[in-house]
Amino acid sequence: MNNTAILLIDHQVGLQALVKDFDTVGFQNNVLALASIAKELNLPVVITASVPEGPNGPLMPEVLEMFPDVAVVSRHGEVNAWDNPEFRAAVKKTGRKQLIMAGIVTDVCVSFPALSAIEEGYQVFAAVDASGTFNEVVRYAAWDRMSQSGVQLMNWFSILCELTRDWRIHGPVMTDIILKHLPEYKNTMITFNQTQSTK
Amino acid sequence: MNNTAILLIDHQVGLQALVKDFDTVGFQNNVLALASIAKELNLPVVITASVPEGPNGPLMPEVLEMFPDVAVVSRHGEVNAWDNPEFRAAVKKTGRKQLIMAGIVTDVCVSFPALSAIEEGYQVFAAVDASGTFNEVVRYAAWDRMSQSGVQLMNWFSILCELTRDWRIHGPVMTDIILKHLPEYKNTMITFNQTQSTK
Amino acid sequence: MNNTAILLIDHQVGLQALVKDFDTVGFQNNVLALASIAKELNLPVVITASVPEGPNGPLMPEVLEMFPDVAVVSRHGEVNAWDNPEFRAAVKKTGRKQLIMAGIVTDVCVSFPALSAIEEGYQVFAAVDASGTFNEVVRYAAWDRMSQSGVQLMNWFSILCELTRDWRIHGPVMTDIILKHLPEYKNTMITFNQTQSTK
Amino acid sequence: MNNTAILLIDHQVGLQALVKDFDTVGFQNNVLALASIAKELNLPVVITASVPEGPNGPLMPEVLEMFPDVAVVSRHGEVNAWDNPEFRAAVKKTGRKQLIMAGIVTDVCVSFPALSAIEEGYQVFAAVDASGTFNEVVRYAAWDRMSQSGVQLMNWFSILCELTRDWRIHGPVMTDIILKHLPEYKNTMITFNQTQSTK
Amino acid sequence: MNNTAILLIDHQVGLQALVKDFDTVGFQNNVLALASIAKELNLPVVITASVPEGPNGPLMPEVLEMFPDVAVVSRHGEVNAWDNPEFRAAVKKTGRKQLIMAGIVTDVCVSFPALSAIEEGYQVFAAVDASGTFNEVVRYAAWDRMSQSGVQLMNWFSILCELTRDWRIHGPVMTDIILKHLPEYKNTMITFNQTQSTK
Amino acid sequence: MNNTAILLIDHQVGLQALVKDFDTVGFQNNVLALASIAKELNLPVVITASVPEGPNGPLMPEVLEMFPDVAVVSRHGEVNAWDNPEFRAAVKKTGRKQLIMAGIVTDVCVSFPALSAIEEGYQVFAAVDASGTFNEVVRYAAWDRMSQSGVQLMNWFSILCELTRDWRIHGPVMTDIILKHLPEYKNTMITFNQTQSTK
Amino acid sequence: MNNTAILLIDHQVGLQALVKDFDTVGFQNNVLALASIAKELNLPVVITASVPEGPNGPLMPEVLEMFPDVAVVSRHGEVNAWDNPEFRAAVKKTGRKQLIMAGIVTDVCVSFPALSAIEEGYQVFAAVDASGTFNEVVRYAAWDRMSQSGVQLMNWFSILCELTRDWRIHGPVMTDIILKHLPEYKNTMITFNQTQSTK
Amino acid sequence: MNNTAILLIDHQVGLQALVKDFDTVGFQNNVLALASIAKELNLPVVITASVPEGPNGPLMPEVLEMFPDVAVVSRHGEVNAWDNPEFRAAVKKTGRKQLIMAGIVTDVCVSFPALSAIEEGYQVFAAVDASGTFNEVVRYAAWDRMSQSGVQLMNWFSILCELTRDWRIHGPVMTDIILKHLPEYKNTMITFNQTQSTK
Repeated sequence: MNNTAILLIDHQVGLQALVKDFDTVGFQNNVLALASIAKELNLPVVITASVPEGPNGPLMPEVLEMFPDVAVVSRHGEVNAWDNPEFRAAVKKTGRKQLIMAGIVTDVCVSFPALSAIEEGYQVFAAVDASGTFNEVVRYAAWDRMSQSGVQLMNWFSILCELTRDWRIHGPVMTDIILKHLPEYKNTMITFNQTQSTK
Repeated sequence: MNNTAILLIDHQVGLQALVKDFDTVGFQNNVLALASIAKELNLPVVITASVPEGPNGPLMPEVLEMFPDVAVVSRHGEVNAWDNPEFRAAVKKTGRKQLIMAGIVTDVCVSFPALSAIEEGYQVFAAVDASGTFNEVVRYAAWDRMSQSGVQLMNWFSILCELTRDWRIHGPVMTDIILKHLPEYKNTMITFNQTQSTK
Repeated sequence: MNNTAILLIDHQVGLQALVKDFDTVGFQNNVLALASIAKELNLPVVITASVPEGPNGPLMPEVLEMFPDVAVVSRHGEVNAWDNPEFRAAVKKTGRKQLIMAGIVTDVCVSFPALSAIEEGYQVFAAVDASGTFNEVVRYAAWDRMSQSGVQLMNWFSILCELTRDWRIHGPVMTDIILKHLPEYKNTMITFNQTQSTK
Repeated sequence: MNNTAILLIDHQVGLQALVKDFDTVGFQNNVLALASIAKELNLPVVITASVPEGPNGPLMPEVLEMFPDVAVVSRHGEVNAWDNPEFRAAVKKTGRKQLIMAGIVTDVCVSFPALSAIEEGYQVFAAVDASGTFNEVVRYAAWDRMSQSGVQLMNWFSILCELTRDWRIHGPVMTDIILKHLPEYKNTMITFNQTQSTK
Repeated sequence: MNNTAILLIDHQVGLQALVKDFDTVGFQNNVLALASIAKELNLPVVITASVPEGPNGPLMPEVLEMFPDVAVVSRHGEVNAWDNPEFRAAVKKTGRKQLIMAGIVTDVCVSFPALSAIEEGYQVFAAVDASGTFNEVVRYAAWDRMSQSGVQLMNWFSILCELTRDWRIHGPVMTDIILKHLPEYKNTMITFNQTQSTK
Repeated sequence: MNNTAILLIDHQVGLQALVKDFDTVGFQNNVLALASIAKELNLPVVITASVPEGPNGPLMPEVLEMFPDVAVVSRHGEVNAWDNPEFRAAVKKTGRKQLIMAGIVTDVCVSFPALSAIEEGYQVFAAVDASGTFNEVVRYAAWDRMSQSGVQLMNWFSILCELTRDWRIHGPVMTDIILKHLPEYKNTMITFNQTQSTK
Repeated sequence: MNNTAILLIDHQVGLQALVKDFDTVGFQNNVLALASIAKELNLPVVITASVPEGPNGPLMPEVLEMFPDVAVVSRHGEVNAWDNPEFRAAVKKTGRKQLIMAGIVTDVCVSFPALSAIEEGYQVFAAVDASGTFNEVVRYAAWDRMSQSGVQLMNWFSILCELTRDWRIHGPVMTDIILKHLPEYKNTMITFNQTQSTK
Repeated sequence: MNNTAILLIDHQVGLQALVKDFDTVGFQNNVLALASIAKELNLPVVITASVPEGPNGPLMPEVLEMFPDVAVVSRHGEVNAWDNPEFRAAVKKTGRKQLIMAGIVTDVCVSFPALSAIEEGYQVFAAVDASGTFNEVVRYAAWDRMSQSGVQLMNWFSILCELTRDWRIHGPVMTDIILKHLPEYKNTMITFNQTQSTK
């Protein structure tokens, strides 16, 4: 956990119209769950947007509100965030060597910086359920390309678990994120707590 | 709108484990959207739960919080809510002849009272995306049975539109519900408003 | 419940190789759940098999074991069980006017006697998840044909609920069948009872 | 059986490129199974092709070979086969009132003559698995439209069973068609016969 | 054909982000194919948009370009186009009694005016592949509701065929639309024509 | 077989509500089949549960009943079972170098200890059909990550076959497990044995 | 081609009931296409069956008829064909170093000998569309395991093309197999030849 | 970009009937998008066709029209384009070491030359959404085989982005291709530009 940073790339409202491999309600829930992990575990976060003054539009407002102190790196041309010096500097400044990346679209905005970071010696994890793209064909091609280069494919829940490792230490954070973003688990917790409280 | 009531049936936390024809995040969003329609349009609401003191557990807390003044009809045995006199009385008391029903599971908790209400002369609408069940086979069998009896199958968004009919009158309510529950539309609105505001 | 009989048609081991619209583990569970409903509610049962001495083979042994006192109607040629006088006599002898039918394959062994019984004035319910066939195209065509004639499509769980109607009266039977055939519900019950018992 | 004719409409090699709701191997098997039913039960058959001298191309050669004595009705313009006087005359000449139709594409070449024949008082059955079209959306829309008008949706196997009704009378025909077109059943028969023959 | 009008409802660029039951390339092709039918067969067309000055945005430019002489009915509040007097007047002015409707979203913008028109005695056809919505659950619920009221579900290709009926009369129009919108058929035509031309 | 142990991780009743990539009836059958392999082949088994006194609840009772002599390792915080010294000791005590792992959820409770064990030099096999998780996206990402690290993906049937290798030696065990957990094969066996016994 | 042998493993009629990841008509077509490749290109073939005197039953009769001179290796216990000395000898006797394998079920009867042969230095190709198993989860797990070990995944059509390489040399063989097993291509050939012949 | 060539292989009208893993409208859009990338970025293009004078037919006319100056390499027998000296020479003449390949069918016409080029030291990218084949089983087997050999799987959009890298330099080309081939993005651009222009 002390060696990890989370990179949120181009989760812009206009670009979400390109995401067809998830339904939007579920996808936004996944993105916010990943963002919550960063926030609640105090991980360094780098956020970037591609030409937000154009049709791609602003980042999801819920993400921006979670990180009022993070300066968003607005790129005005670079497709691959890694090509942007300000972005690379922000990543470097975190001092972390394990990078968790998510973004829109998976095959470009995640895959390109993931491959670039791998080449520079970082250990890279793609948060694949907080990353969306056109369809399943494109998703699985992008996965294959990233995996081929050594990127590890994970989901927000396994990232949460890998970072926290122990309910005795991080139970409150884990519970809080689960209550907000994993309703199957929340339902079980409600039942359990209710029957406990009636003892 | 003046002749419509919304019936929320057995959206209990324990029963949600039976719902496999929707992912839970999306399903809860649909239920809450339907509940929001009732609340924001001031429609009469009847809420019931089946043996909530047992493993079925309490209703979704978010639903309960939306209607602090609605007395939940706790059934202690009747599977079909329509068999419960208190429930029937609550429906009758609304004075409405058009009933929108949603619940868990579609093939029992929605289908049974829907057929009962049709027999008693009500016009019944099943909110099928706020109603869940075991799998698609069961869902489509239940749809067929309800449709055969004259129940009309709708979804929360078409219910919202049918009740409001005109953006000039109900625009704020429609927008509010969309911003909370239909992120595809919300994204478009954000882009539009942002470009407007920069004029 | 006093007017209902259950007809189990051609659930033979050889014919199950034709069932591709369900996985076999789940399908057998559905068939046994329906059979359990008949057994535990003491409904009259009519069981038939098509040429069991040939490649169709014997009925599922678990079904036969549940009804040691029911004489299986072995048909030696009639495809439509309703064409067999012994079968029709067995149905008539039940004195029931509501017939729940399930069988292999849906489009023949269920659909044909269902249409025949409708013509003779019975009310017919097809237990669609205890009935299997070649693929979804055939299944939905058979559903449409049955529905067009007034057959009502149901599943074993809604049949159980429609017959029992009230947990206060039939709770033990409902629970028993759920514990054996609906593990999602069973899991919730285990959790609930465990937390109760530790009070 | 004495009142039934089978109509094979536009199963042309060029039009099969439009069929995407079945894989071609399986689809051709279904068409040939239906044709075999006609042939082996000596049902009157009417076969037609739309502009076979153009890109639609000739009918499936296997179908043509099965009915060397049937004069194919070549239509040179009518989309709906029922608009063609020669086709209508051929149907009328069969003297049959129950028409089983199959063709390419379902939504046009089956649906149009099916609705026309219904209007003229025929009883119409669509053999939906020997009829293909662009995708599932189009298929199910066409089914709904036909069903709405009273067309009954069937598949080749249920057609075979409905026509033959009794294995004692038609066993050889049924077995022959099954051995050629229903390999799941054939496999069971091989096993059964082999173990029988080794007694 | 002389009694038919085509109604294109709310095919606006902003609303297309709500369409998830078709991929966008294919959906736009279907919409343009339907529009081409209207144009090439000189059918009266009524086009409407819901608050195009807001986030819903303008109609697809390709549609607008096809009908430079058709005045678009801009609705400034009515969800159901049929509630708009200008729209109703435009439909009435066509003098046609058979209305083909398509729009975004199926469950609102098609379903509502379809039911309204049925009530007023029109014969209504929904062009279901030129109409899109949130997901398959909503699509099939909307289909069921429309079908229940007598709306006939069709697709653009069957509409084209039903209107033209005969290749000898309308062959050029049919070919033209196929070449632009049905590439499977186009490919066959290219092969055929090439081999013809080399004779 | 002499070098293999089976590790059953967190198959708890509360956690099964998180498993959406299998239907529950089929999933429990797979888990019990894997457990039966361990039991009938006398393989060492290590069973663990995560905070079973909380909402995760107890392990599947059927699993516990199969291994009355195995002390379940109750973890009170560690997400990765490999982080728990008692669990590692239990694995080590088996003396086996080939570990077959299954659990809930695949991406955490299987994937984490699998990667840990690989790092420590074990040969690891994930029993993927006795391991469940939220959806297919998460499943395939977890598979990719495990495969990338050298974990071999297997299913309970191939595990059974790889361990037994020869029907002449292990026929009774293989048959017994198949009769209980693989009904497709059971059906064939019934037919075969029946025809044999009638000789 | 001179270094290749084809191994057909356990395509027995009883085992086909286990194959659920292909429809049976299509699967048998794939198996026969692969067998035809061997036959028409005169490749050495090794055929084996697992306990064919038991419920697994005999091999597909169509395969046996194609190779009257090939002695089937009947295994009486070995699950992995490679464990059978007679089978290994037959493979060795071919003198070929490139082995194409297909069988039922993919995860056992193909995967096990594939891994064994890889270990002994053979180059192994799995014909994945002539190999079937229980479901897609098992199929893709087996693929991953084979791929991880260096097995190359191919389909019968690409195998045909890789072996023949040139239409000028092997055109008649390629055409013959396509006409029998690839009806999409056959349809195109019929159209082409017909228009050619009418020149 | 200066080291890249695009190879379009066998996108012939007759072969498109073999492509079932994409709908044809969407597939042609993908092929033309890839071709547009080559054209607008002035990349060297090599185009080849397999026996275009036979049933495979001519290349897609839209592709041919885009490259009037490129001499199509007509192969008269070689299945693998790399076996054709003229094709290899054309590739070599480009002087590029990064080859992007697309074609019909993926498992033969893309996979074979991809593996051949990898062996000769090229870096190879398969444009998987501009390459089609029989079904998903064949597609994913071909992907696995290519990936195993080091081929990188990409889609046209990620190829466009990887080649252009910066909107400030290549914005007009990127926009032009998006407007023609990516309607989701186009819709957003229309809305944005319209609201901009009304400022």
